[in-house]
Amino acid sequence: MSNAPFPTIHPPTRILMGPGPSVMEPSVLNAMGRPTLGHLDPAFLQIMDELRVMLRLAFRTDNELTMPMSGTGSAGMETVLVNLIEPGDRVLVGICGVFGQRMAEVALRAGAEVVKVEGEWGRALDPDALRKAGAGGSFKALCVVHGETSTGVLQPMEEMRGIADELGALLIMDCVTSLAGVPVEIDKWGVDAAYSGTQKCLSCPPGLSPITFSARAQEVLAKRKTKVASWYLDLTLIGSYWGQERVYHHTAPINGLYGLHEAVRVALEEGLETRWARHRAVSQHLYEGLTEMGLDLRVPAPERLAPLTAVAVPAGADDALVRGALLQNFDLEIGGGLGPMKGNTWRIGLMGAGATRAHVELCLAGLRSALA
Amino acid sequence: MSNAPFPTIHPPTRILMGPGPSVMEPSVLNAMGRPTLGHLDPAFLQIMDELRVMLRLAFRTDNELTMPMSGTGSAGMETVLVNLIEPGDRVLVGICGVFGQRMAEVALRAGAEVVKVEGEWGRALDPDALRKAGAGGSFKALCVVHGETSTGVLQPMEEMRGIADELGALLIMDCVTSLAGVPVEIDKWGVDAAYSGTQKCLSCPPGLSPITFSARAQEVLAKRKTKVASWYLDLTLIGSYWGQERVYHHTAPINGLYGLHEAVRVALEEGLETRWARHRAVSQHLYEGLTEMGLDLRVPAPERLAPLTAVAVPAGADDALVRGALLQNFDLEIGGGLGPMKGNTWRIGLMGAGATRAHVELCLAGLRSALA
Repeated sequence: MSNAPFPTIHPPTRILMGPGPSVMEPSVLNAMGRPTLGHLDPAFLQIMDELRVMLRLAFRTDNELTMPMSGTGSAGMETVLVNLIEPGDRVLVGICGVFGQRMAEVALRAGAEVVKVEGEWGRALDPDALRKAGAGGSFKALCVVHGETSTGVLQPMEEMRGIADELGALLIMDCVTSLAGVPVEIDKWGVDAAYSGTQKCLSCPPGLSPITFSARAQEVLAKRKTKVASWYLDLTLIGSYWGQERVYHHTAPINGLYGLHEAVRVALEEGLETRWARHRAVSQHLYEGLTEMGLDLRVPAPERLAPLTAVAVPAGADDALVRGALLQNFDLEIGGGLGPMKGNTWRIGLMGAGATRAHVELCLAGLRSALA
Repeated sequence: MSNAPFPTIHPPTRILMGPGPSVMEPSVLNAMGRPTLGHLDPAFLQIMDELRVMLRLAFRTDNELTMPMSGTGSAGMETVLVNLIEPGDRVLVGICGVFGQRMAEVALRAGAEVVKVEGEWGRALDPDALRKAGAGGSFKALCVVHGETSTGVLQPMEEMRGIADELGALLIMDCVTSLAGVPVEIDKWGVDAAYSGTQKCLSCPPGLSPITFSARAQEVLAKRKTKVASWYLDLTLIGSYWGQERVYHHTAPINGLYGLHEAVRVALEEGLETRWARHRAVSQHLYEGLTEMGLDLRVPAPERLAPLTAVAVPAGADDALVRGALLQNFDLEIGGGLGPMKGNTWRIGLMGAGATRAHVELCLAGLRSALA
């Protein structure tokens, strides 16, 4: 007779085609089950060092300060903002979805004076709107979302460095849903600080957030006049553990880091360019299939984020009923909409291990059945 | 030919007898490898609900607001402090080790005026010292570490509620290393807010932090005049996801939560009283064995924390060499000292699945060999 009120879990096997978590890489789940090491074990320190090298390759950067934070993508966002912003700093935030809104909120809580530039949900931001809002002003940071998970929009980044320079600002980028799925070029684009997640195009369970800081961002961090408000996310402390000093800060999430090591390894093994091309190709199949079914895509073709497609719920269909039928009959998860897109939009993810032709066909078949 | 610069990891199997991570429960590692669910999947919501019920049993509380935070024990500490403290609040912190110091530092960053009561490292705090330091004053919170991981001291908690009442304060407790290893009685002791970790007596990989808030603490949270500085750890937001509203906040660390579900389940299945008795019994064997070897225990018998034993590095022995030999020859990890105990103290963990007679004997044999 057991004293525990519940039995061991046996979660069903779902096909995850929502906004994340995505279809997991099997070897990542295997890696997470390997024997736990101490956080100062030489064998673990080697895994950390390898992971940092691989994250630099994935981010396409030489930034020394590149490492995973011990929290989800939102913790990565907070890390970047609370480490770079001091109370009273002016910050320009581009907003056309939930994650731009979140950056503004987190920056506000860090004490920033936030200037918001709001664009239409389902469209990329107009760089000129950013220029105009910032004109003549001086800003600590310009914050942009590269892949807006709430709308399926890819923000072109090429002009952003120039705009940041006009503002005298650091360039901060959210690449939670873009990293390892579409080109992310930290150094080429002149991004000063970026954060990502594990559960999107890396096909690794959620719980960690890779971040990277340029030398300029590191300098801003080093010259802070006030302490970082969050002790847990304070990079001046955590950097000493991930750097060569190995000073104990908090106990690293060992097995989660095994998983991330394997996930980044698998992405690099495929080759980033090959991986980007695969995401692009399968998303095209999805666009064609959805269009053939008479469904409307929410985002104009040039602004689409390949790993995540927003599609309008057709007239007469019930959002929740359709998603419920997909889950019940096909073990297939797609995402609903957020904010103004709640109830009228589905979000279909083709991320990492889930970005395959077979998943496209399965999703189309499921939708055809549920909408019939 | 691979584009990845490193092969898949194959971490060695270590016997973890340091201050944590501890020897893992095999079924916990298995659970973490189960298929990832979406964070709003009904099957996952059920796992969350079960986990909350089981955490209440483990904490011995009826507190509604009981749940795991998506970060390690230090994130749990920060959660409790940033949610309950507002700038200018006075906080009394008892300090006789690293984790008391950390509470003071985190409270300071949350804007508190911190009054420190410092005691000897390796001893419990004298309740009268707390009374004296707080006498006549009014405080928002009294902060105490139940199991001080840096020194292996167990702080008696019975008098703390009375002292907190004299101060008009919430009682906040760190039970990272005590939960599921020695009696933790949130409701009986009148604790208002507590946090723990997964990688100690629960034998689950690090990465999550169970917390619990009393009705009184929840009321303080609800009546805040300022926003919580950390968006990621803001319980007014996260509570809406873990509660019945299911409002999306951040993507929960699904597979880590599978592991915690299994870990708490296993602890309850054994029965908390049985588990406490097991930790007490095996620690006695360790004390006897160390004493027979002529080694000095750092903490007087009545104040010892059964899951973690501090022992003096004997004259003539080199701390790092001995620990290196244990790791190399026995795959056995024990911990070094921190702060004033660095270089002169070892910390030996007997936690969760590692709290067995066999582990005691193995550690004693290793030490005999390394010190010979």
